Amino acid sequence: MPELRQNLATRDWVIIANERAKRPHDYIEPERHLTTDTQPFYDPTCPFCPGGEELDLEIERLPETGPWQTRVVDNKFPALSKEGELTRTFDGVHRCIFGLGYHEIVVEHPRHNTTLALMTPAEIRVVLQTFYNRGWAITRDPRMEQIIYFKNHGVRAGATLKHPHSQIIALPVVPNTIRHRIEEARRYFDDNGECVYCVMMQDELQKGVRIVEANEHFVAFVLYAASSPFHIWIVPRQHSVSFLYAQKDALADLAHILHNMLRRLFLGLRDPNYNLVIRTAPVKEISNDYLHWYVTIIPRLSRTAGFELGSGMFINPSLPEESAAFLREVNI
Amino acid sequence: MPELRQNLATRDWVIIANERAKRPHDYIEPERHLTTDTQPFYDPTCPFCPGGEELDLEIERLPETGPWQTRVVDNKFPALSKEGELTRTFDGVHRCIFGLGYHEIVVEHPRHNTTLALMTPAEIRVVLQTFYNRGWAITRDPRMEQIIYFKNHGVRAGATLKHPHSQIIALPVVPNTIRHRIEEARRYFDDNGECVYCVMMQDELQKGVRIVEANEHFVAFVLYAASSPFHIWIVPRQHSVSFLYAQKDALADLAHILHNMLRRLFLGLRDPNYNLVIRTAPVKEISNDYLHWYVTIIPRLSRTAGFELGSGMFINPSLPEESAAFLREVNI
Repeated sequence: MPELRQNLATRDWVIIANERAKRPHDYIEPERHLTTDTQPFYDPTCPFCPGGEELDLEIERLPETGPWQTRVVDNKFPALSKEGELTRTFDGVHRCIFGLGYHEIVVEHPRHNTTLALMTPAEIRVVLQTFYNRGWAITRDPRMEQIIYFKNHGVRAGATLKHPHSQIIALPVVPNTIRHRIEEARRYFDDNGECVYCVMMQDELQKGVRIVEANEHFVAFVLYAASSPFHIWIVPRQHSVSFLYAQKDALADLAHILHNMLRRLFLGLRDPNYNLVIRTAPVKEISNDYLHWYVTIIPRLSRTAGFELGSGMFINPSLPEESAAFLREVNI
Repeated sequence: MPELRQNLATRDWVIIANERAKRPHDYIEPERHLTTDTQPFYDPTCPFCPGGEELDLEIERLPETGPWQTRVVDNKFPALSKEGELTRTFDGVHRCIFGLGYHEIVVEHPRHNTTLALMTPAEIRVVLQTFYNRGWAITRDPRMEQIIYFKNHGVRAGATLKHPHSQIIALPVVPNTIRHRIEEARRYFDDNGECVYCVMMQDELQKGVRIVEANEHFVAFVLYAASSPFHIWIVPRQHSVSFLYAQKDALADLAHILHNMLRRLFLGLRDPNYNLVIRTAPVKEISNDYLHWYVTIIPRLSRTAGFELGSGMFINPSLPEESAAFLREVNI
């Protein structure tokens, strides 16, 4: 029978529609369209492949000398402008801020036809280090309020270029949705004296049914109120508001668990399209007791339509406990 | 230069990314894939075509006697269950409600290969009357809190069946997003003593640049902070919290303006995929000074990706003022 489940942290409801339930294997991509099969190792026309680098757009690279593994470049068609003044206008009805911000591309690997799921944990560690470096650099710009680190993998997830890459957007405002999440977390802390994310993570560890894996610093599970099939959270065990305050050895652990989780999806569901987001506190929230950063992976296996636009709620036709069991069993 | 614009009613920011701006004609579907060209007038295998009706699922039809124009049927694979008891459980972490609710299909026309944009205003009026009748019937169920009336047109908008239809979902909760909108509207009223939607509509009428058309009861415009290209609001001039409290002659006027707006999209952009939602107050909010129902049309011309999932904000690569001018000029 269908259930409405509530995410304790965000208070968002989701419909778990067992009536129309699909089993985990129903989500396996019917036709193999793995990047490695359809794309060349190297594409001379690709601006992200070695040899074709647009050096004028480059911000940094790792390692700094010798052949690079990651490069950060300005988006050639940025949504926001790095130059200009942060003007604000309000005429009583229209509130407008000049679109000042950062829009950067993280090229994750020199190889054209690879993807995070096929990289080594050490290589993923370098990608995370690149996020970390850029996050700190942007944090020094006092005009920036929020950094969104994200990855679009596959066309259905919004990717337009094949070469493995992520993006970083920095905004001069804290988005409304993030403010609402902060308010909910603060309210939970007021009521209970605990971080709601810590509570959820501890509960998942105790119950075990939705856990996929865990290591010294991180816990990965399918969400109780997963808004779509295989909706995953990777939560640091240590309470901290921001990815930028993660310890150095935590990054290596995050690379490991990310590698394993993405391999489970890649092998189990045959390279599904997905979005990955690092959800982290506003730049100027350095520390508090109620916010907790984490990584979310959202495979794009269902479509949002009028109901989701009208209600802000999601219909998930899969059972989170079954999805977790399926992912646990993938032989990585 | 890019701008961040704020929707005064919801306080959501949107990035108007002029740097990557597309002109209105860039959104015209390059290949004509009009329903009328690719689908038969009548499909004997379609459960919504006359002759194939699944009568056991039927809830009502209009007109009640003679050949029908609209039929309401239970969704064969409903997201929610009409039967059962509204149980709630909370163990301290997991809040769950039994998935009680309505999930109905409104078959809009007997003809398989038509669409709202090709129907007459009188036919669209019958579709709206069907929404209205079902809305009132569901409102009498005291367990229901919110009704979402919506339409998915085209695959990219989430439609799985070709035959023209809309959907109605009734929920035993008021979704979080809708609560946030109510709170924002109430706060605006507290501060200013006016309905924020009335203020926005009056301002659009005065400025004119984003107005597409208006009639005695309704005003249709492209939103100042449009979250995607050609994002349209159709707002009733008379303040009212709910679609169900619209006057009878207002429905005829809504049918006219909806007909014209959908024809502008159909002819101007060549039958784009779109979602349509009637945004209306929770069932038990009968009247107040701050909420205002309206219809929104969201053509699916851009994709949501990691940035939108991570921030709740949207990047709109088109200029709302240009979109409105383009739609005004379509010869309907």
